[in-house]
Order: sequence, then structure tokens, then C-alpha cells
Amino acid sequence: MTVPVARPYLAATAGFAAGDDTPRDFLEACLATIEAREGEIGAFVALNLVGARDAADRSSARWRAGKQLSPIDGMPVGIKDIIETADMPTQMGSPLYDGWRSGRDAASVAALREAGAVVVGKTVTTEFAATEPRGTRNPWDPARTPGGSSSGSAAAVASGMLSAALGTQVIGSIIRPASYCGVVGYKPSVGGINRGGSHDNFSQSCDGVLAATSAEAWTVAREIAARAGGDPGWVGVMGPAVPQSRRPTTLALIETEGWARLSDEAGRALDAAIARLRNAGVAILTRRTDAMLGAVEASLADAMALSRDINGWEARWPLNTYRNRDVTKLSRGMVERLSAAEAMTQADYAALLRRRAEVRALWAGLAPSCDAIVTLSAAGPAPLGLQSTGDPGFAVAASLLGVPAVSLPLLQAEGLPLGLQVIGFEQRDADLFATIAGIESLLA
Amino acid sequence: MTVPVARPYLAATAGFAAGDDTPRDFLEACLATIEAREGEIGAFVALNLVGARDAADRSSARWRAGKQLSPIDGMPVGIKDIIETADMPTQMGSPLYDGWRSGRDAASVAALREAGAVVVGKTVTTEFAATEPRGTRNPWDPARTPGGSSSGSAAAVASGMLSAALGTQVIGSIIRPASYCGVVGYKPSVGGINRGGSHDNFSQSCDGVLAATSAEAWTVAREIAARAGGDPGWVGVMGPAVPQSRRPTTLALIETEGWARLSDEAGRALDAAIARLRNAGVAILTRRTDAMLGAVEASLADAMALSRDINGWEARWPLNTYRNRDVTKLSRGMVERLSAAEAMTQADYAALLRRRAEVRALWAGLAPSCDAIVTLSAAGPAPLGLQSTGDPGFAVAASLLGVPAVSLPLLQAEGLPLGLQVIGFEQRDADLFATIAGIESLLA
Repeated sequence: MTVPVARPYLAATAGFAAGDDTPRDFLEACLATIEAREGEIGAFVALNLVGARDAADRSSARWRAGKQLSPIDGMPVGIKDIIETADMPTQMGSPLYDGWRSGRDAASVAALREAGAVVVGKTVTTEFAATEPRGTRNPWDPARTPGGSSSGSAAAVASGMLSAALGTQVIGSIIRPASYCGVVGYKPSVGGINRGGSHDNFSQSCDGVLAATSAEAWTVAREIAARAGGDPGWVGVMGPAVPQSRRPTTLALIETEGWARLSDEAGRALDAAIARLRNAGVAILTRRTDAMLGAVEASLADAMALSRDINGWEARWPLNTYRNRDVTKLSRGMVERLSAAEAMTQADYAALLRRRAEVRALWAGLAPSCDAIVTLSAAGPAPLGLQSTGDPGFAVAASLLGVPAVSLPLLQAEGLPLGLQVIGFEQRDADLFATIAGIESLLA
Repeated sequence: MTVPVARPYLAATAGFAAGDDTPRDFLEACLATIEAREGEIGAFVALNLVGARDAADRSSARWRAGKQLSPIDGMPVGIKDIIETADMPTQMGSPLYDGWRSGRDAASVAALREAGAVVVGKTVTTEFAATEPRGTRNPWDPARTPGGSSSGSAAAVASGMLSAALGTQVIGSIIRPASYCGVVGYKPSVGGINRGGSHDNFSQSCDGVLAATSAEAWTVAREIAARAGGDPGWVGVMGPAVPQSRRPTTLALIETEGWARLSDEAGRALDAAIARLRNAGVAILTRRTDAMLGAVEASLADAMALSRDINGWEARWPLNTYRNRDVTKLSRGMVERLSAAEAMTQADYAALLRRRAEVRALWAGLAPSCDAIVTLSAAGPAPLGLQSTGDPGFAVAASLLGVPAVSLPLLQAEGLPLGLQVIGFEQRDADLFATIAGIESLLA
């Protein structure tokens, strides 16, 4: 088996001005990897090779002229197929949208093109970015799931088919596949990237980035938000081009509700990383030593149920209109989800929102006492089988909280990648990336 | 000229159980009015008469069996053509969407159908619910504008073609046409009605209702939100079926930036209404007598510019992708708006949001000292001509503030209708309707 190797872009651009290398050459290397591995992995539902080559040639000309539009001018990117593209269909992993074309780019895609990025294709999503898998395989082991719902984005970046790809997360759909595939996954603060034309409409969902390095994940998100902003009413991801590395003095370790299902090797990998941070002089708070952290962990104990109920009410539409149109084109799980949601009332939802606000307020109270919060991104490496996209128990906390979270491919278990998750505070994404740079240098 | 007469629904339902009258008969009266007046007024872009008659027949059977789904079961309603419908195209007043069908109902439309309402047609919107008119005429005088952007909704309700219709407002698109056409217009608190499938994506825009009476406007909004909720993350409009009338003790009178363009007759009509409220024992605060109100008025002095700039940034998408697709299908005004927006930066937008938050905080400070705020809905009656939808100067304050506002057809000027606007506090829509009932009984 070939060990998959991701393909960072920013370092390669150093050669573009001199003409030693070009975005077109970089793209061709990606396309060669797609040619070699896509048949096995199944990361894409659509490709626009003509458009991508044309965009790469225009980027090559800009770099030669010193007129690149941004640091990511020419970067080959993929778009999760829950996000609209003018030049390719948007099918949302659902037969209800077979061949559907919106005729427009989503806000994030328009921003990527304005920044000069090269949109190569649409990456596989589970049905409506929920749980029903659509066949993508893990590039580290084709018998395993890549995770979901941003399945194709994680698999394509991990295998070097693309440098970066857009994903979305409402429970664990960026952090989990990033962990399973061994790439960086960045879920911004709520509102962080404009979701116009992205069909992830939940109150705690976000568009985010899967990339080869944390610096590239930050740069892609920042370049999008500089042009498209956050969701209407939100400023969006903002900050320095390269957040200055900051060595953390204190990190909080949380277990989350995924802990009960932690694999032995994953637990040892986390322990070893925490030990290295402690040895480097970083203070580590835990629920056993810090009362406030204990209260936060207790408040997160039913993060999954709370998130699922909130999402349930918010998913009544459009699922009700899809059911009325053709129920046979919804998975059984989706129909059951709708039935459960239709038993809820507006007053139930009001109570759920109050509970979420309480959990968020508790979390915000941690900010004075630590630089960031760390935990695993998943309970173990990618599980065998393609029938499930795996357990999002470690990823859901940051989704419920609306705070930024990044999965870093720094750990391993059973010879497979495993993410260290670093979680921050709402609308302080740049601070989180500064701390991440510090953590990376301590664990490098 | 026929004086247009609106067609309230709730009172008519008393006869439905006995079979003296039926929703189908009620619908046929609406359709007869459409037949008689639509050629002149031009309120609709699409009608589904077969579907409406079928829905009305099913409603008739439910009422006869005592199994009506809600108080508005059988109510003939229209849907502003910026909001998706499964059975009719959604064309958004733009040639870019000629004949476009989304194949699904918007959240609000799905909720209306679940409540038994009869969806009769799609009502004319200006281009993308902005300023470019699409030919609808005022039922009181076909030489005058009905206002915009909810032009067809206001005209259809005013003339009795429908009992109620959905509108949307980001500046003055419900309050102004309601005033010009002599119907009730209700713009809820921000987040009040789920905008899923409604293409009004601005941070201060809302879906709302145009109706024959304030009670019907409230009931329609409440029945929608009970089924579809507010925007994701917002509970939405909620409260008693009939908010108990509450006689106001204190009202605040604000002038807004529309005051400079106030017509003489409109000013006299407002003065007379205020005098009647004073004579009935209601204390009236003004900027001249109340320092806090003076500060609020000062903060609202550039409400229009602030709103336009906020909307500008938020409209970069999707206008940028529409321009790239076919610039000839955008009005000149829309292209100019996009150019101005593209000169803005994310930091500019951040500053605008900070300013809006300050204005909102000042407004919230009024709550302890008055029951509601009153002003006109427009600077005068509907102006002559169809080239402009009129001046939104009196309507924009509530949009910027994100608070509920209702235009009541209680005044007249130049023999034409003029709205008294009553404005409340964020997420306290039910309280506002209680006060409105009190005001209506004092001014009846």
C-alpha cells in the first residue's frame, strides 16, 4: 500500500515567480494523483479538468508577472458537494438533487476564485451532510471509512489530490474525517465563513477547511472570509496572515463524551502527547484538578443528544418538503429523523436553545485560565467498514459550543493517523492558530 | 374607481362548521376579485388555481368535520416571489431566474400548507426584493406605486384578492407597501420567521405578513413559526393565540429620518392621532421632552446609510456570481450597488456591525419607559408613478434595530391610506400586538 502524502501549496509558491515551477505544473501533479488513486478512493462526484487547467494557466501568468491575487493564487482546491458551484452540479449526496445545477457559486467558492484558487472538483458528501455514506474509502486503508460527512474532502487532501478542500460541520463532519485521514481540519467559530449557497443551514453548523498544514487551513479560511465575510451579521474569520506562534502556558484537557469509547492505543497516544507538553513546561488543567473544568465537562456530558435535538428541529425544513416530493429518495435514517423532529414543539426548541446558551457561557468562563483546550479528535483511528462514518463523540463539543476547533495530524494509533484536537474560544480563531503554532513546535 | 376592500378571513370561519359558508366559497370570492382586477393591478407573477381549489375543498371538508388544522385552515394566501414554492416557479423579479423552479417549498410555505392555508399564487417582487419595480399598480389609484419590494403582496391583500400574503423587509419592504395600500404590515423581530428557502439573506431582513387586520397578521405569523420556528438559532414568533389587549400608559413618538420629507397632510394626520391618544390619557414622550429618546433619535439619524452599507457588504454574494454569469440580466442599479460593495473591506463591515449594535443597545434602553414607539409608516400617501416604489425613510429604523414593527391602516392623507407605525422591542412581538390592540381600540 502507498502511504498517502498530502500536498502543501504555500511552500511551493516560492518557485513560481522565478518560473522554476508553475501552478499549472502543481495542478498536473494533483491530477496525476487523481488519475492514479481516484478509482480506488472515490473522493469526487464531479471534476472540471478543463476549467481547472485554464484557471491554473491564468494563475501561472499572474505569478510570473508578480500579480498573484493572494497567497493561495493557483492552489488546487475541492468543494464539498453540499456547496454550490456555477460550473459543476451540486448534488448533496442525495438522489433528490441528481444533476442539479444552481447556476451560481456559493459565497465561499466565489471568494476562492477571486483569490485565484483553482477549483478542481466536487467532493463526496454523505446524504445532505448527515450520516448516510456515499462510498468514499480511506486513503490509508481502503477497507476503512474516511469519516464523514466531509468524506471526499478529507480523502482527497490526505492523498495529495488537492492541497485543500471545503468541508462543513454541524456535529463532527470536519474534525472526524480530518483525524481519520491524517490531515488538518479547521472548523471555525460559528458564523466564521459565509454560508451563502452552502446547504448546511443549522444554527451550529459552519463551513471550514481541510488542508495539508494548519497554516494552510488558516490561510484558506482567512482569504475566503476577507472576500465573502462571515454569515450575514458576523464579521467572520479575521486576523494576521500568519498568526505569530505563541507557546502556551496552560492548556485544559477535556475528555468529552467520546471518552467512554476511547481505544487503548488512542488513549496512550494522547497521554504521550500530554506528557511531552507537560515536560516542556505547559501546565495542564483536568477535570480532576480544576473545579471549573469539571463543571464544563459535566455540562458537555449530553452534547450529542442536545446537538441532535437542536439539529432535529432545524432539519424539519427542508426534509418535510423533500418527503412530500418523493420519500423514496430519502434514506431510512433521514425519514426517521424527520419523524422524530415532527414530534417536537417550538417550546421544546426554546428550551434546547436556553440549555445551549448555558453550556456556551460556562465554556467562555474558561478563557481567563487557559490558552486553549485539548483532546482527541476521535476515539481511535478510522474504523473498518464503509457502512458508518464513525463516532463523532470527540468532535461534537466544539460544534455545540460554536467555538473554533482544529484537528492536527500529530498522533497515531494502530499504525493509522489520529488527530489531536485543539479548541478555542468564540470569534478568537486567530488566537487559536497562534497557540496551535506553539503546540506544533513543542510536539514536532 | 372602486374603493378596494380587504377580505379578512378569521371572522368568516365562524360559518364553516355549520356549512353556511366554506373555504371554497371564500376562495371563489377571492378568485372573482382577481379575475376582475388583476389585469389592471398586476399583483401576481404566477397562479395555481387548480391547486388552490383543491386545497380549499380539502379545507372545507376539515371544517365540516370539525378537524381544521389551525385558525387559518383554508385562508387564501399569496407568497412573495422571493420565497420558494414547490408548485410554482420562483423568479425573484429577475430575468436570471426566469422560469426557475426549486422543486421545494420554503420553510414558511411548508408551514402555511401544514396549517391548512390555501396558497393561491406568487406575488410580484421588485428585482431581488430591492428597488427595481416590476409594474404592480396601487389598487387605490393605478397611477400610483403600491410601494415595494413586497409590491404584489400588499396590492393583492388591499384589493381583497387574498386575505394575507408573505412579504420580506430589509429596509422598508413590508411597512411601506402596507402603508401605501392601506393594509396591515407586520415585520417581526429579527429571526422571527424561518427564512429557509426565502432569498432575503441579509442580517437585518425578515419574512413577515401583509393582512387585512392586525389580528390576522399576528395569527398567520404565529401559525408559521409554531411549525417552522424562527431562523436557525432563533425560537421565532411565539405567544398567545390572541394577545390580550393592553391599553398603553406611555408611548414614545419618534420622527425618524423620514421626517424631513413629511407631507403636510400626513403630518396633520399623525398629529390628530397623537392628540386622540393624549386625550385618552396616554402619555406621549418626544425627543423634546425626553433626553433618552433624543439620544435614540440622534443614533437613528443615519439609519438609511448604515443599513444600505451593511446590506451592501452582505449583497456582494450572490450579486458577484450573478454578474459573472450575465451582467445584462441585472438592473443598472444592482450593478452599481455591487461595485460600491466591492470597494468595502471586511474591517469596514466590522465597524458597521459595531455601530448597529450600539444603536440597538440604546433602543433597548427605552423599554422601561414606554409600552411601544409610534411614528408614521411613510412620509405621505403612495406617490404618483411606477418608476419608484417610494421613500422608506420611516420604515428603516425598525429594520436596522431588528425589532418588530406593524403598520396599521388607521390614517389617511389626500384621500389615500397612510399607516400608523407601532414599533416594539426585540423578541417581544406578542407584547407589541397586545399594545396594538389597545391602540386600535383607542383610535377606533
